[in-house]
Amino acid sequence: MTSNEHSPLTRKLSAFVALSEVELAVLERLHQRRRSFVAGRDMVHQGQSEQAAFILSAGWVCSYKLQADGSRQIVDFQVPGDFLGLRSVLLRTSDHSFEPIVDVEPAEVLTSDLIEAFTQTPRLATAILWAASRDEAMVVEHLVGIGRREADARMAHFLLELGSKLALVGLGSKAGFDCPLTQYHLADTLGLSAVHVNRVLRQLREHGLVTFRDGRVTFHDYGGLVALAGFDPTYLDQTGPLLT
Amino acid sequence: MTSNEHSPLTRKLSAFVALSEVELAVLERLHQRRRSFVAGRDMVHQGQSEQAAFILSAGWVCSYKLQADGSRQIVDFQVPGDFLGLRSVLLRTSDHSFEPIVDVEPAEVLTSDLIEAFTQTPRLATAILWAASRDEAMVVEHLVGIGRREADARMAHFLLELGSKLALVGLGSKAGFDCPLTQYHLADTLGLSAVHVNRVLRQLREHGLVTFRDGRVTFHDYGGLVALAGFDPTYLDQTGPLLT
Repeated sequence: MTSNEHSPLTRKLSAFVALSEVELAVLERLHQRRRSFVAGRDMVHQGQSEQAAFILSAGWVCSYKLQADGSRQIVDFQVPGDFLGLRSVLLRTSDHSFEPIVDVEPAEVLTSDLIEAFTQTPRLATAILWAASRDEAMVVEHLVGIGRREADARMAHFLLELGSKLALVGLGSKAGFDCPLTQYHLADTLGLSAVHVNRVLRQLREHGLVTFRDGRVTFHDYGGLVALAGFDPTYLDQTGPLLT
Repeated sequence: MTSNEHSPLTRKLSAFVALSEVELAVLERLHQRRRSFVAGRDMVHQGQSEQAAFILSAGWVCSYKLQADGSRQIVDFQVPGDFLGLRSVLLRTSDHSFEPIVDVEPAEVLTSDLIEAFTQTPRLATAILWAASRDEAMVVEHLVGIGRREADARMAHFLLELGSKLALVGLGSKAGFDCPLTQYHLADTLGLSAVHVNRVLRQLREHGLVTFRDGRVTFHDYGGLVALAGFDPTYLDQTGPLLT
């Protein structure tokens, strides 16, 4: 099998942990059970118990929490190569909801599948935990962004991080990336109003840094955007093999 | 060995996963290598590579990130029974700093110790991952709080969560808990100024809900505080055994 025949998750993990044929086979087996979900309708909802995890090979999903007053906070986005709900698969009740942004067909992974795979291949477990730690580092950055960054730096940081994440699975570069998010998604992610999101995007465009239009984020001045955001990609740990 | 002779981490995990004598022995062995750290001086700093994880059996630690402008965002607090740095032990560079709030003597756990322990006892790995998932659920709640909760609800939620966390290791109850945090810690946690923290604490006290004074948080009206915060402790997953 060439690496192009592997799923985005397999390609991502293989970049960091040299997986044996046996480990690759266990990982590919986790992809077997496909499920279909329609855009805009929760695939897992807050408070649901005994939920599975999902491996996303195409499409976008967001995870979010609703407040009692109906306001929504988006926690993070899942893109191809991401394990969705891995973080909370061990907690018996999902602490947040997952909503597909486009129609998706992820692979469903039950807790028992995961524990079995981990028992068979501890190196694969390490690789998956690496990916989970990286996802959590992004949630922490998001927290810091909302707590301490100005709206323009917050937006810049978010777009740069998404670009880096997508670049790892061949879906983005320093030129830009395709992006199905609306300004409402951005608002619920960054803790801003939709009006404020609009104003910030216009400022970034007028300063020649980045344009987000017609489903495409285009970086005009990548270095300038990095400087504005204070973006240090070290936390993404994308610089080479972890286990050889 | 009676359960009181075990460390807080062992007691916490044992409440959720029935650990065998062998698994308990592996877990206790992780506690062997003690290190000393002085209050106020970073034990791990942002950008440091090859850091270890630590098991905290007494005292308080905070994890935080500094922004380029010098502002600080506290991500979470570690209390007895917590695994510190577990989240990022697999990422080669620490994405945040850890600062002891009081003098602490945690046990140092190297990545290799952890991988060995996980390989020996997958059930123990499951238990530790459960605890890590729970810690991350708290970071997510923190993100939601900063993004979407008013200052008073944010403070109320934070104090209730800390109380629940401490109750699990016998250090808190619905009456209150001892708390070494300053108003600067609260400000850096909640994304508020110290002046704003003061005002919010005074309001909560004047409404007869909670007092934070002289190193002690006292809940006067636990139910009222829960209602104000919209606190739903389901995400803490503290309701009984996970693996029997």
